[in-house]
Amino acid sequence: MSNSLNPVLEQIEKNFDGSIERLQSFLQIPSISTDPEYKKEVRRCAEYITNDLKSIGLNAQMHNTIGHPMVVATDDSAGPDAPRVLYYGHYDVQPVEPLEEWKYPPFDGAVVDGPRGRRFAARGAADDKGQLMTFVEAIRAWKQVHVTLPVRVVILLEGEEESGSESLVPFLTEHKDELQADTCIVCDTGMWDENTPAITSRLRGLVYIEATLHGPAHDLHSGGYGGAVVNPANALAKILGQLHDDDGRIQIEGFYDDVEEVSAQQVAQWNSLGDADALTLESSGAKATFGEKGYSTLERLWSRPTCDVNGLIAGYTGEGAKTVIGAKATAKISCRLVANQKPEQIEKALFSFLEVRTPAGCHWDLKSFGTAPAIAVPVDSPWLAAASGALTSVFPNPAVLIGSGGSIPVVGEFQEILGVDTVMVGFSLDDDLIHAPNEKFEVSCFHRGILSQAAILEAYANITP
Amino acid sequence: MSNSLNPVLEQIEKNFDGSIERLQSFLQIPSISTDPEYKKEVRRCAEYITNDLKSIGLNAQMHNTIGHPMVVATDDSAGPDAPRVLYYGHYDVQPVEPLEEWKYPPFDGAVVDGPRGRRFAARGAADDKGQLMTFVEAIRAWKQVHVTLPVRVVILLEGEEESGSESLVPFLTEHKDELQADTCIVCDTGMWDENTPAITSRLRGLVYIEATLHGPAHDLHSGGYGGAVVNPANALAKILGQLHDDDGRIQIEGFYDDVEEVSAQQVAQWNSLGDADALTLESSGAKATFGEKGYSTLERLWSRPTCDVNGLIAGYTGEGAKTVIGAKATAKISCRLVANQKPEQIEKALFSFLEVRTPAGCHWDLKSFGTAPAIAVPVDSPWLAAASGALTSVFPNPAVLIGSGGSIPVVGEFQEILGVDTVMVGFSLDDDLIHAPNEKFEVSCFHRGILSQAAILEAYANITP
Repeated sequence: MSNSLNPVLEQIEKNFDGSIERLQSFLQIPSISTDPEYKKEVRRCAEYITNDLKSIGLNAQMHNTIGHPMVVATDDSAGPDAPRVLYYGHYDVQPVEPLEEWKYPPFDGAVVDGPRGRRFAARGAADDKGQLMTFVEAIRAWKQVHVTLPVRVVILLEGEEESGSESLVPFLTEHKDELQADTCIVCDTGMWDENTPAITSRLRGLVYIEATLHGPAHDLHSGGYGGAVVNPANALAKILGQLHDDDGRIQIEGFYDDVEEVSAQQVAQWNSLGDADALTLESSGAKATFGEKGYSTLERLWSRPTCDVNGLIAGYTGEGAKTVIGAKATAKISCRLVANQKPEQIEKALFSFLEVRTPAGCHWDLKSFGTAPAIAVPVDSPWLAAASGALTSVFPNPAVLIGSGGSIPVVGEFQEILGVDTVMVGFSLDDDLIHAPNEKFEVSCFHRGILSQAAILEAYANITP
Repeated sequence: MSNSLNPVLEQIEKNFDGSIERLQSFLQIPSISTDPEYKKEVRRCAEYITNDLKSIGLNAQMHNTIGHPMVVATDDSAGPDAPRVLYYGHYDVQPVEPLEEWKYPPFDGAVVDGPRGRRFAARGAADDKGQLMTFVEAIRAWKQVHVTLPVRVVILLEGEEESGSESLVPFLTEHKDELQADTCIVCDTGMWDENTPAITSRLRGLVYIEATLHGPAHDLHSGGYGGAVVNPANALAKILGQLHDDDGRIQIEGFYDDVEEVSAQQVAQWNSLGDADALTLESSGAKATFGEKGYSTLERLWSRPTCDVNGLIAGYTGEGAKTVIGAKATAKISCRLVANQKPEQIEKALFSFLEVRTPAGCHWDLKSFGTAPAIAVPVDSPWLAAASGALTSVFPNPAVLIGSGGSIPVVGEFQEILGVDTVMVGFSLDDDLIHAPNEKFEVSCFHRGILSQAAILEAYANITP
């Protein structure tokens, strides 16, 4: 390790109790962006982090939007010739329902003991407050030791990531110049395991719709009408049941037309990472893996598209029995897409799949909740190599390249609007229960994350953009 | 018409405004038996009708049960040799949700104008308060004119018909002697149309279950796990989609083994009743009939079993999009059964249907909500012939024999516990919206119903049991 980095790493160790306390305070603000009742708390959270970035010595500003505030902080102390790095994270969090399933109050910012040592037990701990604080704490330590940073930095913290990011594209367009950078680090992904850091190079895209099948004009008594008219709940089940064949292949017309098979070499690298099935079963609590025949679990997650029913509701859903034929039945359906699949085309094909199966006398009410393309970032860039080396210097195991089954639309927006490629570096684990009750973030992940971000800062200083 | 009946019919006409007012008062008591909040109102309703029966001159008593009260009223003024007739109705009503869909408050007891003249617009108007008041009003008029009745009468009014009838069997068993009768009239069924009275000779039975398919231990992010583990909502849809083949035949093993085909003659009689498809479409608001191939709508409704999904819930069902794979998915499923099918056997076969399709790593939580056999009452009894003649004397068209797609378990209990066969005579219409918002009962049906019940009283007096 170089002479510049070493004292920063020491400073991080010395100040780690402070880092923990700052993250705890940050976690205590219930910045639930999707619920209008929490609008003030989201704003308070933006103010909190803006002030914290100012206290480090950054030029930080909170920007109002039509939704929740954007926070931008810059530091150009490295001088005009240094590379400029854009950091992205989000300070908003998911709702907490069902609240009764939480072992600790979701906004107490508790640090508790777990099987891997201490952990932050709070909503947003891993997604994404704990993660974004890794680069904030690394920059803090670097500023404390050296006053100037080794690279120019622009930090963008969003408050609408969990609620549709409606302000993101207009904001990026309007602040394009201020946000200009040579490379970008998005810190919202995971590691392979607690000792193996990872850079995520593939993200799946998304199509999400809601489909309501309408039959009779009103709810009917199942005695008086059962067998005489269509039951939308039966019909919807029959139609959804045709989405996959017995091998798990999706039956939407043209669904696989643009899907590229991944190289055997890539598959071999993924499959050599370890026992993905065991990790998946452990973190999901499922008793068996399941999916498209002929592909390993990691291939399915990282390189194969899906079609999932995310919600179903029809008829009577209360306690006990009610002999009703509901007038309608509703499904929320989403497809995870892989690189090259065209979201609008897939959405259209999904609508058609439903429409051609409309039972006589029924009609659909079809809604789109938006689409996002899949992402595959360049894996041969010097930034990715440098970040990989930095991660490897901190963790017991070398960094690996992984995919992610999820979608991070901002990566595509950065490429399209700012013209910058992203390196996705993150420190969460599969069992962090993001979006679920009892979200957590390991203190050890936070610790190594901060050290890694410091090492990346130094590694990036040596790259000529 | 005989000398005894004529003055009674005149008295009914003279007092009809009073009959309307009494039914309105009865409808104003919100006797929702399934909701514990209405327990007092159910009791108040039982007290109301007990007092009304006493005011007629009957020996009426309200009996406490573990659930809601039973009301029993007797009149043996006809002397020990006269036939004894058991009348059954229920004074409890269905819940009113969704309340916002009602055009009139459900418990105002409003009488309003409709396409067929005036109608009672209230919860319970047709099911069953308006119906049971037909025999109460007929008996009232008879007592007013003649003091003694032409037959011995025992009236049983239940307060738990809409909530499972848990007290019924113990009550029948305990009060077997008091309830002993030569024949029974259950007044809780419909007519063919407003001018054509009907006696219902077939009722379908019922199996009702709830099936929850459990997959992962907790809800999962559809990005991180979609394609890797089973999605219970997808799996449940696939399984439910297999319940029927493309011809609408139910695929549960052995499902049709005990189903008797109805005679061609019987089918011809049903199909000659009129345009059942048009009636079904009109009353349901469906745009097409639908069901098992090769059978007319009336055959399907009255002589073919069904399998309906009555409720579905899984994953996220709120507004907008949530990228979740729910840990479980639940369906409420019921089968309407026809004579000879064995309910317990069908329930077992339905459970097996689900179990043999359990996806790897999943398990079911299966609940039974009870079963009821189908009923076919004797169509060659003198009681049925007499009732048919009485109905024919009142209505423009002669009475017809019909089936019903629904279940009335009490008919089976009367046969089994009291050893008495039932004649099902009722005056509701298919568009009365029972169990739905805007339930109604035509004033003309009420009027002719009372006249019919008076005519039946006389017709029964001439039968030697």
